[in-house]
Amino acid sequence: MSHRIFILAAALALAGPAIAQPVAPAPIPFTEGMKYLYGSGEGAAISVQAWRALTDFTSRQVRQRPRDSAVLAAGATLAAPSFVPCGRKPFAAVFDVDETVLLNLGFEYDTAIGTPWQDERWNQWEKTGAGHAAAVPGAAEGLRRLRAMGVKVIFNTNRVVANAATNQATIEAAGLGPARHGDTLYLQGDDATGKNKDGRRAMIAARYCVIAMGGDQLGDFSDLFAIASVPARRAATLAGPIAAKWGAGWFVLPNPVYGAGLKGSIDDVFPPAAHWPAVPSQEK
Amino acid sequence: MSHRIFILAAALALAGPAIAQPVAPAPIPFTEGMKYLYGSGEGAAISVQAWRALTDFTSRQVRQRPRDSAVLAAGATLAAPSFVPCGRKPFAAVFDVDETVLLNLGFEYDTAIGTPWQDERWNQWEKTGAGHAAAVPGAAEGLRRLRAMGVKVIFNTNRVVANAATNQATIEAAGLGPARHGDTLYLQGDDATGKNKDGRRAMIAARYCVIAMGGDQLGDFSDLFAIASVPARRAATLAGPIAAKWGAGWFVLPNPVYGAGLKGSIDDVFPPAAHWPAVPSQEK
Repeated sequence: MSHRIFILAAALALAGPAIAQPVAPAPIPFTEGMKYLYGSGEGAAISVQAWRALTDFTSRQVRQRPRDSAVLAAGATLAAPSFVPCGRKPFAAVFDVDETVLLNLGFEYDTAIGTPWQDERWNQWEKTGAGHAAAVPGAAEGLRRLRAMGVKVIFNTNRVVANAATNQATIEAAGLGPARHGDTLYLQGDDATGKNKDGRRAMIAARYCVIAMGGDQLGDFSDLFAIASVPARRAATLAGPIAAKWGAGWFVLPNPVYGAGLKGSIDDVFPPAAHWPAVPSQEK
Repeated sequence: MSHRIFILAAALALAGPAIAQPVAPAPIPFTEGMKYLYGSGEGAAISVQAWRALTDFTSRQVRQRPRDSAVLAAGATLAAPSFVPCGRKPFAAVFDVDETVLLNLGFEYDTAIGTPWQDERWNQWEKTGAGHAAAVPGAAEGLRRLRAMGVKVIFNTNRVVANAATNQATIEAAGLGPARHGDTLYLQGDDATGKNKDGRRAMIAARYCVIAMGGDQLGDFSDLFAIASVPARRAATLAGPIAAKWGAGWFVLPNPVYGAGLKGSIDDVFPPAAHWPAVPSQEK
């Protein structure tokens, strides 16, 4: 809890329960991350750049079939990654959906005006969001290029299997389809591992040579990134053989709005070695 | 002002001036954007990816000298961009500094714990920050690769010319040097156009074939992006010939912490067409 928020909480406690209740968690729901991702030129440009890198990489791989797919093999570790062999399997590319190919504008607007997260509200969004989401800049053209190269586009999302039909409709309404459950759309509930995606990735990699994967969360590449320590998780992305995957098989889309990338204490994010002691602050 | 913030402001007004004063502007200084950029695996990975795309692109361009540099020519527009010709000039790549090659950890930690922005505080950071900043993930290796290819690395930053020596030291202490004012370091004050960078870019492009540019702000690519309307500015990044530059000459690093990408009203960021009217909110 920052100093300011502590003062605010104390002030509201003093002011009594009648006014303390409606502002209890007090985040600012229209966030800077939303401005960056959904509104800025910088957010659009970095997305287009990621999609260009992905399609250019894939086009080179299609011309010279790779030995390995981009999916980690069973038993692989981040320190010693090994990958499912491609053999002569047909080519595919595997994508997360939310904030990877799709900007959830309707749902996030609702959040921005103050509606708190509720599981049931997200479930309603999965059922009725078609037409209120947009393609990530660069995604629609990127997917078209991949399909034109003969690369099968497969979505692997934690949207749920009970909403398969409306999730297909949402993806297709944004110009990103086709998406067909059991063929080009894998959903949470397709296996017994819940929100983990390695099982679904293994199913896909058994049938396809997966040239590229795209996602906004590290879990879109491997469940091995479920590391509790924020600094250790960041360090894991930068260690030798894993660092070599970013932009070369694994492609990251920006998401400063939600997810695993927004965790951490101030000391996790700014390690003591990085503090700036030379000049005392003028306001403390 | 969102509904929640309005309720909060009203509550504080009711509670009287004694407690209303300390929380007046009430931003949370330790932001989600900081967690994403400085702490997350996702932020590290997307940075490495951008640096890989840039160095791979540059390596291809070095092998087959391009006709045009990546710097817009005098008189160019975003609708009809034209570029300074390369001729037989030596190769260079041009980079912004802050949050492009350098993470300003010391300064941003100071912000995160509550120190408000002051021009003089930033000036102190320029003078004494060496050793309290870190390289952007991927940047040090990327710059090494560029130099090994024979591409001159030139920094074009809005840090000021009065602090040239300490700014050089900060860049070099992070393992990103050499940086020499008048040769490989261009600063605010090198010409009479203030924070605009086109004049400095023109000086560099007169002497070099600039293969690639990197930045976290659209102004690191062209001053033409100084467009007041947030949606028009985003649209400008996605129009035909400009969209073709992202990841192919112009390379964007993530920055959801500060800058031009964090502007805009809720209606700028979530245009009415994207609202989700199907289900009324349960909490309003």
